[in-house]
Amino acid sequence: MEKIEHLGIAVRDLEASNALFEKLLGTAPYKEEEVASEQVRTSFFKNGPNKIELLQATHPESAIARYVAKKGEGVHHVAFAVTDIVAEMERLKNEGFVLLNETPKRGADNKWVAFVHPKSANGVLVELCQEIKD
Amino acid sequence: MEKIEHLGIAVRDLEASNALFEKLLGTAPYKEEEVASEQVRTSFFKNGPNKIELLQATHPESAIARYVAKKGEGVHHVAFAVTDIVAEMERLKNEGFVLLNETPKRGADNKWVAFVHPKSANGVLVELCQEIKD
Repeated sequence: MEKIEHLGIAVRDLEASNALFEKLLGTAPYKEEEVASEQVRTSFFKNGPNKIELLQATHPESAIARYVAKKGEGVHHVAFAVTDIVAEMERLKNEGFVLLNETPKRGADNKWVAFVHPKSANGVLVELCQEIKD
Repeated sequence: MEKIEHLGIAVRDLEASNALFEKLLGTAPYKEEEVASEQVRTSFFKNGPNKIELLQATHPESAIARYVAKKGEGVHHVAFAVTDIVAEMERLKNEGFVLLNETPKRGADNKWVAFVHPKSANGVLVELCQEIKD
């Protein structure tokens, strides 16, 4: 857990939210990316050593669509940068955390990702992410 | 907006959550602090350039108690570090954001703080914070 790599924010309308966060953060998104496996369109903003990721559902049954329907727009997850995601997943499992995936999967922004169940982390959906090096 | 200064997480039981986040982050909280004006007890964890703040209500009518009663434990606010909080408040007001306080107030961790209404920021309670220099 080296730093907050990014904060994921669920939004209804990516274009409108891009404009809003550009005003808030004083900088435009540096990329947009669709992650078909997660049924989301995302955009990323740099904020010093951190990033803000906006997520809009591309399917009404996707996790983000269900989140927004239930809780409204807002902070969806917090992602921590790790250098060895497999070791970190093992460490957290041994500490009693419940992981949502057994092995790392490909996420947005060229990352291996894994999620910790919010029920085991005080209501916070925690993501681990490690840069994919080719 | 220089970086995510900290992420504020509302919890029911600060001691239990301190133990949980110590396991999650791999480091113990470096301080605890009561902020009487906000009716909270807080603890802080370092995570590289960022911090995690846990907040437990000290009064059943406090903002954190009401938040937990309504939404459960979880991410409560995201705080961005700024160098000139008054100028940044002015800039955001001019951009159409609604501020929850007209002037900076003293927050935890030796900071001047101000909040942006979540209704004007995609459901995210945004805090601005600037270190108090004596």
